[in-house]
Amino acid sequence: MIDESRNSMLEKYREFVRIPSISASREGVDEAASYLVDLMNSVGLRGEMMRSGGNPVVFGEVSNGSGKTVLIYNHYDVQPVDPAGEWSGDPFSAAVRDGRVYGRGSADNKGTLVARLFGIGEVLERDELEVNLKFLFEGEEEIGSPNLESFASENRQKLAADAVVMEGSQVDAGGRPTVTLGVKGLLYVELEEETGRSDLHSSLAAVTNGAPWNLVHALNTIYDGRRVLVDGFYDGVRPLTGEERRLVEAYPLDPEEMLNSCAVRELRSMKREELSYALLAEPTCNIDGLLSGYTGKGSKTVTPRKAMAKLDFRLVPDQDPARLFGLLEQRLRSVGFGGSISQFGMEYPVRTSAGSWVAKAMIESASESYGCEPVVMINGAGTQPMGIFTRTVGIPEGVSAIGVGDNLSRVHAPDESVDIGRFYQAVDHTARFLRAAGGR
Amino acid sequence: MIDESRNSMLEKYREFVRIPSISASREGVDEAASYLVDLMNSVGLRGEMMRSGGNPVVFGEVSNGSGKTVLIYNHYDVQPVDPAGEWSGDPFSAAVRDGRVYGRGSADNKGTLVARLFGIGEVLERDELEVNLKFLFEGEEEIGSPNLESFASENRQKLAADAVVMEGSQVDAGGRPTVTLGVKGLLYVELEEETGRSDLHSSLAAVTNGAPWNLVHALNTIYDGRRVLVDGFYDGVRPLTGEERRLVEAYPLDPEEMLNSCAVRELRSMKREELSYALLAEPTCNIDGLLSGYTGKGSKTVTPRKAMAKLDFRLVPDQDPARLFGLLEQRLRSVGFGGSISQFGMEYPVRTSAGSWVAKAMIESASESYGCEPVVMINGAGTQPMGIFTRTVGIPEGVSAIGVGDNLSRVHAPDESVDIGRFYQAVDHTARFLRAAGGR
Repeated sequence: MIDESRNSMLEKYREFVRIPSISASREGVDEAASYLVDLMNSVGLRGEMMRSGGNPVVFGEVSNGSGKTVLIYNHYDVQPVDPAGEWSGDPFSAAVRDGRVYGRGSADNKGTLVARLFGIGEVLERDELEVNLKFLFEGEEEIGSPNLESFASENRQKLAADAVVMEGSQVDAGGRPTVTLGVKGLLYVELEEETGRSDLHSSLAAVTNGAPWNLVHALNTIYDGRRVLVDGFYDGVRPLTGEERRLVEAYPLDPEEMLNSCAVRELRSMKREELSYALLAEPTCNIDGLLSGYTGKGSKTVTPRKAMAKLDFRLVPDQDPARLFGLLEQRLRSVGFGGSISQFGMEYPVRTSAGSWVAKAMIESASESYGCEPVVMINGAGTQPMGIFTRTVGIPEGVSAIGVGDNLSRVHAPDESVDIGRFYQAVDHTARFLRAAGGR
Repeated sequence: MIDESRNSMLEKYREFVRIPSISASREGVDEAASYLVDLMNSVGLRGEMMRSGGNPVVFGEVSNGSGKTVLIYNHYDVQPVDPAGEWSGDPFSAAVRDGRVYGRGSADNKGTLVARLFGIGEVLERDELEVNLKFLFEGEEEIGSPNLESFASENRQKLAADAVVMEGSQVDAGGRPTVTLGVKGLLYVELEEETGRSDLHSSLAAVTNGAPWNLVHALNTIYDGRRVLVDGFYDGVRPLTGEERRLVEAYPLDPEEMLNSCAVRELRSMKREELSYALLAEPTCNIDGLLSGYTGKGSKTVTPRKAMAKLDFRLVPDQDPARLFGLLEQRLRSVGFGGSISQFGMEYPVRTSAGSWVAKAMIESASESYGCEPVVMINGAGTQPMGIFTRTVGIPEGVSAIGVGDNLSRVHAPDESVDIGRFYQAVDHTARFLRAAGGR
């Protein structure tokens, strides 16, 4: 890359950051989608706007008759700027200070999106593209992608590919890029016990257990602090391969550092490998919220008629959230829980083999671009809608990699920023990945 | 009683109700205390105002050299009128409609207080008083009697008596008066678990259980839905005597009626005697409130750093709330609960023998005044500060009886009212009780 073209990339990136495409308020969303179509056209990709149930999807396609198609997924919307007063400058100025671009969306996810487009442009320009490409850039990721599943389902043919490259990767504190070969799934559940029509004076606890005790006793039957106690919960867990075990054990997790960054009293273990296996290879059962009765200061004696708990389960391949929801219901009914059991969200886990062509191309190109071995995760500890692509569209493989953020990027927080060198590195990584994927 | 004197009693009672002595706002409290002193003087009792840490205590004493002293306890403050819009008229008009006096405080507790004073006046006038009397009328009952314990402790000598007659009794739907021979005690506790300095993304539930799970697991170790699981919790429970068992079994509780009035899905049992024993003779463990993490609509994936539970235990004689708090702490620490354990209130249980002179005099006089056997409860299912008199002052016996309210009185609610016939019956009951207590 010559300096002039690098400067032009940086300017385009900054222009894009200046469009305040906050999906929560719909501000600037259409403008950002239009800008994106123009940007795609400028690098030789034909972008088009498609209707989803909500904000437009920007779609694109380059076909060159290759047997391999890669779908690139990113989002062009951004989080709100709150707390606005805590920014050092205008969140949409895209100001450059000390070699970093500051602005909402600079890291999540506009920088990555733009870097990928320029990387693709570079390969196209040199006529070195030997895979087919498809692009899906959505405008609702920051509000939970409410229309992505239906869009994918209605456009299965159009989105069909051999692998999907998701966003969500960044460079760690040691300067190493990350290649994540999948995601954990999710099952989100709300339990609501309701024992009667009104709260009672607590002297009547003598004759009736209130809703909170029923809820506490029910919760206690589904998780013991280490293991989920629902029959069949672990049945679908796919055993790790030798290579996957090696990757988990090589994962550079520092228990002391994790204890500090979590700022908790204790972790499940202070053994590195135990923590790595838990984080990457084991499902979780978490209480997100509890509410019942009197929660103000001091005392009020009441036997509450209602009690609510929200729970999420992070799932590993090949646990099926729909099946587990059924098993959870069975378990709770079998122990006498009489309240409502509602499902508020399901995502499917994904794990792509480290030996797959897309993983190999991504790992190899990352090590070339960054000059070090990438951190390879068998899947993320969190959840992304990768399952929509693998399950709904039927794309067999998925990875998350190529990202401009680093450990200072403050994603979703004030003063979000990106190191300009990392931006160019992601352009380079994209180009190298495409060449590797094409067999060059 | 001649009609003229009855009318005069009713007018004095209504005048008293018209003074809006709401302790929560301190409105009218001093005026009510002054009115009360004047009223006591008008029936031949010398009332005096005494300072407590808060609203004045009205004290009085009549001594005639008897070997027996009865302390009469009532309160002259009232609840706020909210929801004010739901009253059919002015809450402080003391309007008479259909033979009932309407007004905030008419039943709780001004009617009972005034009826007792007139009953005592009648016995004094006829020179038939053969017990010593003391009076303690407080002005903070409706805000939880925050200064009663210290007042009693500082005035032990002045309050010394052989029995205390508390307020809190009423006539049931069948027209039967109630004589209650004690109260359950109370231990109110708040548990707060705090696992770290900030809430975490719930993917980290893989490496650390959040505060709500720790709390749920701890709660589960103290109560199984029937029995409290704290070692030594039941040690202090005094076995019932044969007479007490008879009284429990004779308690007129209708399981179907209770199920309807509680408006709950189910009661602990539908057997009358089981419910009566639970209500009167067994301690309880109740959750008053639960709070942790995200409690709004929909889903948020968070591992909360804090979780709070409020609990109350209703205790039976001779369980000691201070000792049980220590045992509860031991239990929670032994199962690894690391959060705070705070005590927000303790009251001691009381049970006076049905064969004691005060109980016998009360039961006998009630049956004369009302023309039927009273309902005799070995102790109430709820809590009153009777323990302050029995334990702090050292009065050996206590009962709750003589009250003007009935099942239509709507205590603490809009349109609180008292049947005028029940008011005169309470005057008569007071007089008969004093004669019976004096051995006439």
